Amino acid sequence: MAKTATGTRTVAADSLRRVVSAMFEQAGMPPDEARFMGECLVDADLRGVHSHGTRYAVNYVRSLKKGDWNPAAQVRVVRDHQATAVVDADRAAGHLAGRRAMALAIEKAKQYGTATVVVRNSRHCGALAFYTQMAADAGCIGFASTTAGRMMAPWGGLDRIIALNPLSWAAPTDKPWSVNLDMATSVVAGSKLGMAIEKGEPIPLGWALDEHGQPTDDPTAALRGTLLPIGGPKGYGMSVVLDVLSGVLSGATFGKGLGGPGGGHIFQATDVEAFMPLDEFKRLMGQLVDQIKASTPAPGSPGVFLPGEIEHTNKRQRLERGIPMTAGVMDELERFAAELGVTERLRDL
Amino acid sequence: MAKTATGTRTVAADSLRRVVSAMFEQAGMPPDEARFMGECLVDADLRGVHSHGTRYAVNYVRSLKKGDWNPAAQVRVVRDHQATAVVDADRAAGHLAGRRAMALAIEKAKQYGTATVVVRNSRHCGALAFYTQMAADAGCIGFASTTAGRMMAPWGGLDRIIALNPLSWAAPTDKPWSVNLDMATSVVAGSKLGMAIEKGEPIPLGWALDEHGQPTDDPTAALRGTLLPIGGPKGYGMSVVLDVLSGVLSGATFGKGLGGPGGGHIFQATDVEAFMPLDEFKRLMGQLVDQIKASTPAPGSPGVFLPGEIEHTNKRQRLERGIPMTAGVMDELERFAAELGVTERLRDL
Repeated sequence: MAKTATGTRTVAADSLRRVVSAMFEQAGMPPDEARFMGECLVDADLRGVHSHGTRYAVNYVRSLKKGDWNPAAQVRVVRDHQATAVVDADRAAGHLAGRRAMALAIEKAKQYGTATVVVRNSRHCGALAFYTQMAADAGCIGFASTTAGRMMAPWGGLDRIIALNPLSWAAPTDKPWSVNLDMATSVVAGSKLGMAIEKGEPIPLGWALDEHGQPTDDPTAALRGTLLPIGGPKGYGMSVVLDVLSGVLSGATFGKGLGGPGGGHIFQATDVEAFMPLDEFKRLMGQLVDQIKASTPAPGSPGVFLPGEIEHTNKRQRLERGIPMTAGVMDELERFAAELGVTERLRDL
Repeated sequence: MAKTATGTRTVAADSLRRVVSAMFEQAGMPPDEARFMGECLVDADLRGVHSHGTRYAVNYVRSLKKGDWNPAAQVRVVRDHQATAVVDADRAAGHLAGRRAMALAIEKAKQYGTATVVVRNSRHCGALAFYTQMAADAGCIGFASTTAGRMMAPWGGLDRIIALNPLSWAAPTDKPWSVNLDMATSVVAGSKLGMAIEKGEPIPLGWALDEHGQPTDDPTAALRGTLLPIGGPKGYGMSVVLDVLSGVLSGATFGKGLGGPGGGHIFQATDVEAFMPLDEFKRLMGQLVDQIKASTPAPGSPGVFLPGEIEHTNKRQRLERGIPMTAGVMDELERFAAELGVTERLRDL
């Protein structure tokens, strides 16, 4: 197959999962944790959320080998109080900490009806939708947020001290998919600037400000400046609150370099059965979904979709037909995996 | 004092509170509940959130007298499961149901660490910040949301079936005020269209679409069309999720006319002490606030403020100097109060 740095390779999900898992195992992770990393990252690619998928595997493994991420981390509950808990991630991949924390939140929600678990001393945890989906699959409403990179300014200010803190909610439905919203508090993700620079294209006004706080369509100027929050002061306020939930309450790093160790997350699960029978809830959710999807489409619209619906369609199709991935990213992944001594090979479709 | 419909009257907060409370008592509410309605609505005016203040008192009282709102409502817990509860508001003013539900959430959070209480069969509950502030004052992080009027379309659709569902979070700090975010999921509140029509002014592009789904700067066309969500599909997704939390989970009305009786709300409280000593949390919050406020101001910016800070300043000043209110609104309130037989009088400053 011809490959170019800007082209696309369509790879089989199972082979990508095996290669990525093997990379993490080579980096010193226990096999079951390495396997989960492959599952979790490939899940993002399957859903079309490549910004949180296997494109980060090489960087993650480098961080593990450098010792910034701890391949032998002991994720542990350091404070437990009925429907709440504090988890210390011991510098684990945030994915492992997130899985543990949401599983604990679900377990507690099944007992108390609702639960809140925070994590500190963690690292990047990938797509939040993965964890809220765990909750939805368990008959709960899930909520998650995490501290993230600081690329915004406070509303009315210039300094890059406000993070793109994302949040996710998921709820089960009577469809084969859950309503699952996973979004950053910025108008666009930071990676969109890099992509525009690579393509030599301007960006729309409204995405970012330059370093002087002026609107700009130049992605390079935007990279020196700040991304804009959704809804102006609203997105700024949401980002601050999510910093409080994920960073301050957890005892992790918050603001710009304030607080305790590492990244912070928050996971909440609320058991539907504490409110009504799960089947009844799913039936009501189905009515809501059907009503919204029956809306007259706007001119030129491809249709009306619920949060998480397109991602589910992507996943179903890509499990059959393979995942279209940036060739350059896959080429680098293969080279890096070979250097690590991984014998698994990517299978192109 | 000269009064015009478009002018301003500066009224003493305590007199406004007494007049409004007396109106609700005349409408059949028990005195303590009527007193609370005055407190709650005047609090919004004090904070500068007039969209949820005493300007609605006349309509609220009319709804009570018509019987759509129940002046003798028995707000009661109909389902209770450790850290969760379902409250039936019995068609009470949402303010009364909200106070009861958040008080219960706080009580449960003190026991279990975190709690979720939903309300159904309710009516308009005013500014959510009031309830989340109750949580912050009790050393909790508060969250609230409610079902609201449907003035948006689903992303990619034309039908007005998506509500402006607001949400609020509040957290205590070591300042005289709490971080308190209270925002709708639309770019602007629906009332901004009416204000532009009154003034004969165009609205900025980006606020609304006309009935054909096209951008418009005509507020009358916007009123026939739809308001835009913050961040496009993000705000749409948030609104749907908040409908699930406030409307589906509570057994209230959700979507357009689906589900059970009346309006729905959700209230969550998370006890800081379940995670760290409250003083420590407040100290960390102070660091976050100080760092953000120390940001270099943007050109022309009046400074950097945290969510809830300006509202606190407003309240402090207005308690001393009176509340600037639209004269026409106060004139109507006085006339209506007099018709009801209220003997209390507004005091202008």
